[in-house]
Amino acid sequence: MSALRDHVRSGGPVSVSSVLVVGTGLIGTSVALALREHGVTVHLSDRDPRAVRLARELGAGSEWPPGGAPEPVDLAVIAVPPPYVADELRRLQRAGTARWYTDVASVKALPLRRAAELGCDLTAFAAGHPLAGSERSGPAAARADLFLGRPWAYCPTEETSADAVEAVLGLIKLCGGEPVRVSAADHDEAVALISHAPHVAAAAVAARLADAPGIALGLAGQGVRDVTRIAASDPGLWTGILAGNALPVADVLQAVADDLAAAAAALRDTASAGDEAMARVVDLLKRGVAGRERIPGKHGGPARTYTVVQVVIGDRPGELARLFQVAEESGVNVEDVRIEHAPGLPLGMAELSVQPEAAAALADALRAHGWDVPS
Amino acid sequence: MSALRDHVRSGGPVSVSSVLVVGTGLIGTSVALALREHGVTVHLSDRDPRAVRLARELGAGSEWPPGGAPEPVDLAVIAVPPPYVADELRRLQRAGTARWYTDVASVKALPLRRAAELGCDLTAFAAGHPLAGSERSGPAAARADLFLGRPWAYCPTEETSADAVEAVLGLIKLCGGEPVRVSAADHDEAVALISHAPHVAAAAVAARLADAPGIALGLAGQGVRDVTRIAASDPGLWTGILAGNALPVADVLQAVADDLAAAAAALRDTASAGDEAMARVVDLLKRGVAGRERIPGKHGGPARTYTVVQVVIGDRPGELARLFQVAEESGVNVEDVRIEHAPGLPLGMAELSVQPEAAAALADALRAHGWDVPS
Repeated sequence: MSALRDHVRSGGPVSVSSVLVVGTGLIGTSVALALREHGVTVHLSDRDPRAVRLARELGAGSEWPPGGAPEPVDLAVIAVPPPYVADELRRLQRAGTARWYTDVASVKALPLRRAAELGCDLTAFAAGHPLAGSERSGPAAARADLFLGRPWAYCPTEETSADAVEAVLGLIKLCGGEPVRVSAADHDEAVALISHAPHVAAAAVAARLADAPGIALGLAGQGVRDVTRIAASDPGLWTGILAGNALPVADVLQAVADDLAAAAAALRDTASAGDEAMARVVDLLKRGVAGRERIPGKHGGPARTYTVVQVVIGDRPGELARLFQVAEESGVNVEDVRIEHAPGLPLGMAELSVQPEAAAALADALRAHGWDVPS
Repeated sequence: MSALRDHVRSGGPVSVSSVLVVGTGLIGTSVALALREHGVTVHLSDRDPRAVRLARELGAGSEWPPGGAPEPVDLAVIAVPPPYVADELRRLQRAGTARWYTDVASVKALPLRRAAELGCDLTAFAAGHPLAGSERSGPAAARADLFLGRPWAYCPTEETSADAVEAVLGLIKLCGGEPVRVSAADHDEAVALISHAPHVAAAAVAARLADAPGIALGLAGQGVRDVTRIAASDPGLWTGILAGNALPVADVLQAVADDLAAAAAALRDTASAGDEAMARVVDLLKRGVAGRERIPGKHGGPARTYTVVQVVIGDRPGELARLFQVAEESGVNVEDVRIEHAPGLPLGMAELSVQPEAAAALADALRAHGWDVPS
């Protein structure tokens, strides 16, 4: 593909120096803040006038449309929920708002199909999806660094012009994201596997606790807390996502349901079939270990093994500060920390992940300072 | 029930001053270490001579049998996998090893039923289960404080003598656990809900990733990492647990499978039935939120809401120490900390949970020291 030819066709090099962000929620406002840090001229619009005013007050840009007849911007970023992306694209294109268009919706095939049905100009549209977010929402939760180092999928189709692709790549670069080129269909299958279906599965496990006896909740440990954490998210926000990726999510959920139903049947068979039935359960557990091992670790590389040093901590002010002070004085970099509290007692266990070769030195230093480091 | 009568019947007050721990794995050795801290005479046995030697070298007690004809101990703690508890109880009782007996297996009904079938003396046996553990196993992972503040279920039957109950309560107290009286059947249903079935569900979600396209793994975020964390555990260790609690686990897994299959069907129906089909999915998500909210929070009380202050951190040595130093200097107690790393970049976000009224002061103090605290 000739970059020169594309530049000629578009009348000059692709540059993203003016942007309209449509939808000033968490993602849209974070995009705007990141662009502002690079001196890009950013305009903001939202159907909720309070959201756009708050985003403006946060320094995310100025309200759209400006006074007078607006000049087209370089790029319009459509940051509205998946069901509204295509309509918004048509509306903006009819008004001649921008040279190129992208979106940030967490599903890709359906908005593209609807945009084609609505007769949008798909040469100027390069769909995108930054894999970043938060349990919080709205402009007040936005951060200019939300996308730093995060994957940002972009999904050009055969129709998408090279310039539109350049424009979305420029946006991703300005936001600090890591571009991942993927087809819309592959994208939707991927997020069904690593985001949408796990969300529903976590909800289904948590749902069992809704009318569980109180004594069961009293016996809950860290495992079930981890499995169900994302089940606390707002169901309303998830409706649009799941509806927009219905078939890929349905396929994954069906496969998980089949595995669980087979495990249930095998467990019922253990009375008669014994070891043979259990072998089917063990096979599922082994596939689970294999799948878990494929999730990349810190810094996007292969999962890396740190050694965990456990320390008993109390609930006094400054306890963690003193802990990290000792670690620093002994020259050990703590890579990660996890705190597990003992239910019913003001005592907990801090688990410090360190390089394996540093673990003994850290444990010795902590013990020398009076910490209880179980061996 | 008259404590006096029981004391008379057993020939004196129930005291646990000598204990035999059978099975020196993680749990057995941790029990032994906790008892040693209270001056209890502890004997150790294991079918693996290396495990019992290691436990002894860790200070957990002396090897059993001692030289000469052994005196009966007060209490034998059977810390072997669920399938072997009943046989071990019979063997120990035939040798007149102890006055009272308990176990620590994570399932309760099946061992009790088998013990009855084997003709064990069930008056002297009070079954138990400390809700504590680790992804690690073996005596080297043992800790005297493993049970501090943790629930410890105990399951007396109609046959169990009051003295045997007193003995297991004495053991729980010495280990620092929180006794929870529950029937064996209720216990097994509870752990199916809050431990065994969530484990299999996490494995089923992770299993989908075993042959997922690489691009899907590259888009993985924190959510799927949390949901699948416990799926990394050793399948071998879980076989005995699941086999020993097969029917209660099967019931929960079937219910989860039914919910997921129904969600899959509803998502497939959205093309035709639209909002009505999605309403069924939303209902599952809402039940998930309700169930999640019932899990008790820190210190065993109701889940408590802290305010999260986010700080951008680098990967430099001492970064966390400096962070906590500033928190301490500003008089703010950090209740919990979570570190999320940006894949592909040596940058991360530390999320500090603090009392809501302290959040602004902490954010100001961190900013004053040059930290990037997104607002």
